[in-house]
Amino acid sequence: MTTDAGLGRIEDGAVALLNTAFPHVGAVIEQEGSLRCLASCAVRRRIPLEEATLVAPLGRPRAVWGVGLNYVSKAARTGRGLPEQPILYLAASSGVSAPGARVVIPQSATEPDYEGEIAVVVGRRLYRATESEVWPAIAGVTAANDMTARDIMRATGTPALAKSHPGFTPLGPSVRTPEDFTDRDAIRVRTRVNGELVQDDTSDGMIFPVPDLLSRLSWFTVLEPGDIVLTGTPAGTGQDRACFLADGDEVRVEVDGVLPLVTRIVRPTDASQHDHRLTEPAS
Amino acid sequence: MTTDAGLGRIEDGAVALLNTAFPHVGAVIEQEGSLRCLASCAVRRRIPLEEATLVAPLGRPRAVWGVGLNYVSKAARTGRGLPEQPILYLAASSGVSAPGARVVIPQSATEPDYEGEIAVVVGRRLYRATESEVWPAIAGVTAANDMTARDIMRATGTPALAKSHPGFTPLGPSVRTPEDFTDRDAIRVRTRVNGELVQDDTSDGMIFPVPDLLSRLSWFTVLEPGDIVLTGTPAGTGQDRACFLADGDEVRVEVDGVLPLVTRIVRPTDASQHDHRLTEPAS
Repeated sequence: MTTDAGLGRIEDGAVALLNTAFPHVGAVIEQEGSLRCLASCAVRRRIPLEEATLVAPLGRPRAVWGVGLNYVSKAARTGRGLPEQPILYLAASSGVSAPGARVVIPQSATEPDYEGEIAVVVGRRLYRATESEVWPAIAGVTAANDMTARDIMRATGTPALAKSHPGFTPLGPSVRTPEDFTDRDAIRVRTRVNGELVQDDTSDGMIFPVPDLLSRLSWFTVLEPGDIVLTGTPAGTGQDRACFLADGDEVRVEVDGVLPLVTRIVRPTDASQHDHRLTEPAS
Repeated sequence: MTTDAGLGRIEDGAVALLNTAFPHVGAVIEQEGSLRCLASCAVRRRIPLEEATLVAPLGRPRAVWGVGLNYVSKAARTGRGLPEQPILYLAASSGVSAPGARVVIPQSATEPDYEGEIAVVVGRRLYRATESEVWPAIAGVTAANDMTARDIMRATGTPALAKSHPGFTPLGPSVRTPEDFTDRDAIRVRTRVNGELVQDDTSDGMIFPVPDLLSRLSWFTVLEPGDIVLTGTPAGTGQDRACFLADGDEVRVEVDGVLPLVTRIVRPTDASQHDHRLTEPAS
């Protein structure tokens, strides 16, 4: 994880701050290709988890790829057929926000929605990769909230415009290595809005599982160390529930073994006030 | 400009290598917000322009935005009506290549095409900007070749997939400040394929001129220092001429006062050989 006091790893429920000059976890991955070097890093001091201020673990990445309709549960809920090819898009990485961020919804976005997702962080270059090459090239797994303005998506048909507002991609807080999962192909992801469980699925419900998804993507583009792929959201978004995000809502995305990713929603009602309450970027 | 011997500026047709630790022009813009600091930078030594090895001036940016159908000439040539809103997309910045690059076309892209364009580099953060705020926030203007696999565009409907192959976004070689143009709203852009002039227009033929384009984009996303916006291509692409790129083609994009951006096309005919002749990324 990345804190305002430097890089740390979780040990016995506390944060062990590490003796390293890397500014964030993403920089480790970009330079080293994995997080293995952190395992042997000396500990400067330990602080309780609740005293740590978590910042965006991956800084501002150079690519944030995403995929539409990638869970069987989502297809079933919406009555859509299973796609034959993944519906891939890029979001602007300037929209990445830190764990605990207050995300200000612009007044132009009238149907703001959450999407709880499993995010993977590329550790080694992938181009025209086979499925079996994918997991060994992934450095980390974390939680994401792939926020979307449904009205902008409908009006423009362009995910890059509906998903790139400041703060719309909360990522983190901790980054887990693939080796840490007992079954990396059945990672659980859950979303709670104001405590209510609204999404609950595992990655074995994906239409294009992680190896297939990144392999296919890698035939169109090079995935570089530090690039992020958001792997799709299961059934239970606000759109599925006809209930969009409101001022004061708390969205919590839980991915197996990753600290919960909490985001607070701010929807100012007064336009003049709104202009002065912009979400700050992560990096 | 960025050379393999460090940053330089053009003086009397030669390259003045500057006494600065910045790795590339993009890093100067990200940290300083403009290129003004380079004007007063001491000169280490001078080399003839033809002896300089030019590398990607902007490294790997964090965002490459583009726009479809943004010249009146292009709309007229293709018989399409003028769009009411800009058709915006993101391309993967891993596809940025250096001036002089040999770009290897993957066999899966059967209709590779060039798009000569004016690229602008953001110097200062833009969010919900007015038109008058745009030019003062732009640090540089350069040339781009927004290469596109027309067959992939047709099959997927997704610019991010048709434009993100390795090497598909040659950028550079030199970056000019907006103040250097006698008329920054009528910048000429020309493309030559194997010497033949195929595109020739100026930015006053844009449907959404630079201030309008970036202002509109900035209502969907934050543009950060170092982010690139490709501003659209005029009439005369290969698609317009029913003539796609072939092995050995040389594409040359000329933007007013920017050194010519030359790209060489490689289309291996033997699949096994192809796998070993991949375009190298710019950074």
